[in-house]
Amino acid sequence: MYTLLKQEGTARRGEFKTVHGTVQMPAFMNVATCAAIKGGLSAYDLQNINTQVMLSNTYHLHLRPGDETVKKLGGLHKMTGWNGVILTDSGGFQVFSLAKLNNITEEGVVFNSHIDGKRIFMGPEESMRIQSNLGSTIAMAFDECVENPAPYDYAKASVKRTTNWLNRCKAEMDRLNSLDGTINPHQMLFGINQGATYRDLRIDHMKEIAALDLDGYAIGGLAVGEPAETMYEIIEAVEPFAPKDKPRYLMGVGTPVNILEAVYRGVDLFDCVMPSRNARHGHLFTWSGIINIMNAKYELDENPIDSECDCPVCQHHTRAYLRHLFKAKEMLGMRLAVMHNLYFYNTLMQKIRDNLDAGSYEVFYQKYRNILDKRI
Amino acid sequence: MYTLLKQEGTARRGEFKTVHGTVQMPAFMNVATCAAIKGGLSAYDLQNINTQVMLSNTYHLHLRPGDETVKKLGGLHKMTGWNGVILTDSGGFQVFSLAKLNNITEEGVVFNSHIDGKRIFMGPEESMRIQSNLGSTIAMAFDECVENPAPYDYAKASVKRTTNWLNRCKAEMDRLNSLDGTINPHQMLFGINQGATYRDLRIDHMKEIAALDLDGYAIGGLAVGEPAETMYEIIEAVEPFAPKDKPRYLMGVGTPVNILEAVYRGVDLFDCVMPSRNARHGHLFTWSGIINIMNAKYELDENPIDSECDCPVCQHHTRAYLRHLFKAKEMLGMRLAVMHNLYFYNTLMQKIRDNLDAGSYEVFYQKYRNILDKRI
Repeated sequence: MYTLLKQEGTARRGEFKTVHGTVQMPAFMNVATCAAIKGGLSAYDLQNINTQVMLSNTYHLHLRPGDETVKKLGGLHKMTGWNGVILTDSGGFQVFSLAKLNNITEEGVVFNSHIDGKRIFMGPEESMRIQSNLGSTIAMAFDECVENPAPYDYAKASVKRTTNWLNRCKAEMDRLNSLDGTINPHQMLFGINQGATYRDLRIDHMKEIAALDLDGYAIGGLAVGEPAETMYEIIEAVEPFAPKDKPRYLMGVGTPVNILEAVYRGVDLFDCVMPSRNARHGHLFTWSGIINIMNAKYELDENPIDSECDCPVCQHHTRAYLRHLFKAKEMLGMRLAVMHNLYFYNTLMQKIRDNLDAGSYEVFYQKYRNILDKRI
Repeated sequence: MYTLLKQEGTARRGEFKTVHGTVQMPAFMNVATCAAIKGGLSAYDLQNINTQVMLSNTYHLHLRPGDETVKKLGGLHKMTGWNGVILTDSGGFQVFSLAKLNNITEEGVVFNSHIDGKRIFMGPEESMRIQSNLGSTIAMAFDECVENPAPYDYAKASVKRTTNWLNRCKAEMDRLNSLDGTINPHQMLFGINQGATYRDLRIDHMKEIAALDLDGYAIGGLAVGEPAETMYEIIEAVEPFAPKDKPRYLMGVGTPVNILEAVYRGVDLFDCVMPSRNARHGHLFTWSGIINIMNAKYELDENPIDSECDCPVCQHHTRAYLRHLFKAKEMLGMRLAVMHNLYFYNTLMQKIRDNLDAGSYEVFYQKYRNILDKRI
């Protein structure tokens, strides 16, 4: 359960108790799509880079190895070796983005697997059953993700469907949690606010789902093409209507500066593939901005990626070695880069929390909002 | 320098002192072709899998990042973070196998880079200069590698050239070690026995190079297509003529059983890409034989890869998880598999040494020579 420890303006310092440990918030979730972090990091590596929450994807794990298989293996915690908090998404976002979509009805969605083309039906109940089989700490409600910009009428109808689906998710989750043999009978459910970029739809929807007394609330359907300013405006619009005593999760966001801005506006939880994806292309986050390790100027540079960073990579390896590994296309280069970038994100959250604790978030935010996303 | 601690039949238990530490022999060298172990293992990971010697490739590092660059970075030890013994090969084998070969003369070899087609000349002096720039503990002599079977006359002429090249290597290495600014002024030189599959050429050549009082002796040009029995016969033929007080290194060998057989015949040092290459295809070594982790029977198998194995992978992860990672093509699968296989090889050598110490190598050898290469 969420406890608000301190507030600075709208920014919140809190903690969130779960059966798999307490999450200090604001927090960033490290993405392990197929039950593994890209770049060859294991659950045990995550401990060394101060990870609090691992996020895995329902859609991918439903297809491979299959959620029934994961259940037989004792759930994601036992399968991967990660003992901390795990959040699973609902599969919705991938169904709407990765899969070949056939049909959306009130009942759910028919789509074709991006792996083998197999025809699959997923609705709220299916998503809950899969997430129950995965045994995550936190399950996400099954929602429809519309692209921005979306026509008003479509967005409105879609939000209504998402609300209906949320009620079904809640009922199914309650049922599953009460069954014998459920891996995590304390599985939590977060609802997802939708409404495209329409303030009125967003606010009405947040009010509606806030009444359901869920374990947490996410803002979904952002960072999918709209300008960052629009995203910040939506957060500002819905924040007053999100329950104060529940965590707020901004899905799929974002750059370090996006996170600074969203924390400033009252968000507690984040996830994004950016740190690992950028790492695999040699784009590394530092406290002075983003560097491209492939750059010729690093050929003989014996400094660590970031002299301000305490991560296992910066303690041991030079920019010159990293650059060589990338040029030689050695897997080790990707691994070290991902490790550094995730550590950077986790440390960013730590510094945000420390500054909130100290009442100095405003100063920290003003200092770094013009630095961290800059390519140097 | 090599000290023979104990002998059982022809098998030798020894130790080899270098400026970068003492190698307990017999030993297996872990291959880091481009100054990185395939599968995303760093120099620091090597410590956790009981590695004694890292081997890097002169040809690859000459092309990328360039040996002058490695020298400016302080040599391979400083560049990679590996503090133990490093052996570099001469580049010869790659020049003859990977590169587009233009011309072999008494002077050396002209070839085209496999990366960008650039025309490059390499002879004994060039190979020594590159290896001196890399700063390895042990440099290998530049030799001609002929394919088996090779015509007798060609093999004979080639051996003569290899001997001439060896003398030039020795002179150049002495000169380089005496220069100011040489990274490792104590760099050692190993000669390489050649002669294709001809006993008389092999023996004459070994006698000739033994007289040069080098730091060690390798048997090269084997495991390149000839039957394993032929390889064992060549080892038996040349072994009596290899200096007793120097390490003997069988290049590019081999399977666990190849190693058992070669130790039995007096070999002290090995290298092979097999453990890491097989790992990347899901073929994992165990004390009961080789398993293919992609096999359907492992889908729900919650045992470690090998219940007899103490490696970091077997301590933490199940066959089912490994199989999932391979099926999902996750980099983590490769990393864990490489880590396990290299640990297996390093442990095989440890067990060989322990049994030699205890005078029980014959028993160990007889037990495992019919098991370890078997696919199960």
